[in-house]
Amino acid sequence: MNRPNNAKFVVIEGLEGAGKSSAIALVRDFIEKHTAQAPVCTREPGGTPLAEKMRDLVKIADDTDPLCDESECLLIYAARAQLVANVIKPALNQGQWVLGDRHNLSSLAYQGGGRGLMSLVEAVSDATLKGFKPDLTIYLDIEPGLGLQRAADRGALDRIEQQALSFFERARTTYLALAESDDTIAVIDASQSMADVHKDIISLLQAQRW
Amino acid sequence: MNRPNNAKFVVIEGLEGAGKSSAIALVRDFIEKHTAQAPVCTREPGGTPLAEKMRDLVKIADDTDPLCDESECLLIYAARAQLVANVIKPALNQGQWVLGDRHNLSSLAYQGGGRGLMSLVEAVSDATLKGFKPDLTIYLDIEPGLGLQRAADRGALDRIEQQALSFFERARTTYLALAESDDTIAVIDASQSMADVHKDIISLLQAQRW
Repeated sequence: MNRPNNAKFVVIEGLEGAGKSSAIALVRDFIEKHTAQAPVCTREPGGTPLAEKMRDLVKIADDTDPLCDESECLLIYAARAQLVANVIKPALNQGQWVLGDRHNLSSLAYQGGGRGLMSLVEAVSDATLKGFKPDLTIYLDIEPGLGLQRAADRGALDRIEQQALSFFERARTTYLALAESDDTIAVIDASQSMADVHKDIISLLQAQRW
Repeated sequence: MNRPNNAKFVVIEGLEGAGKSSAIALVRDFIEKHTAQAPVCTREPGGTPLAEKMRDLVKIADDTDPLCDESECLLIYAARAQLVANVIKPALNQGQWVLGDRHNLSSLAYQGGGRGLMSLVEAVSDATLKGFKPDLTIYLDIEPGLGLQRAADRGALDRIEQQALSFFERARTTYLALAESDDTIAVIDASQSMADVHKDIISLLQAQRW
């Protein structure tokens, strides 16, 4: 997309345990060297004081008032609208690069594919974002069973991470299908060693016409 | 709508200061006499533990992270989805009447008309509610300046109540236009004395084929 001063919006996506955190650190360093300025780093859902409160409502399980799937989806888009309006667009407009830990593709995969709410997700996505999207999305692809095992080894799983394996399998299928039809989404094999994953990410970044 | 055991969903709507609270008390008493059972009373946004937390995010002004209009709209629908799924539909399915302090018409009027986000509101409304709607909506119509004066006399105004008069004028125009095209929405002149407003509401309720 044409952004002021050629600033770019780069997003890291993937299932739980795919290695997003170390990939984000790697890409942040690359951007900092490439532009001589650290990118604005965001995470979704969240990333502003109000959006973080919306994230809490998505993440915390309440047995007395279980969050319904539609409400989960709408909360995530409320948080995204807030983040795009108050953080991402202002940064890009000032020529700052933005590096996102998840963005809209997560909703298409998790709420659209995983929850089976694709028509709601597409309606809300179109009406909220109006075509705004990342310049590059790096999707770290991993078999859900392996990713969840890695995530469980890290500590307690949150409400989303506690979904059934089939939920994550539907999300992965959606990630891969969407990557197939959008050349701004690159798929990286995250089942490789971390060194090989990072080598692939660096090759991908170096191949961009930035 | 065909509900189990003929249970009905009745909603009171109106601008700030229109007299919703006393109308709700009146309609609650009417329903209780009519059905020999108190209705389930809801308020929007809110009405479940999680939806009340979403309401707080809508109502409280945060100068460091001002809530953007799209996020406000999506939060309200997240709260509504939660309330419909966990309170309103279960009650109706058990044959209990539901009396709502605001519902979807408020979003069409305030966020659609007032904020100018009608295409977002309609997309989210259609995708979330899928045709679910009240059996009867009683819209208490009042000139915004008069209503806001009444609301200010009651105490401090919240973030929504602090909007410019023109915002409420657009909301009122939308309320009236939607009432014109939907025969389940009744308009009551709320600038009358409370006794006359209540007389009109009782006449309206008695005329229903319940």
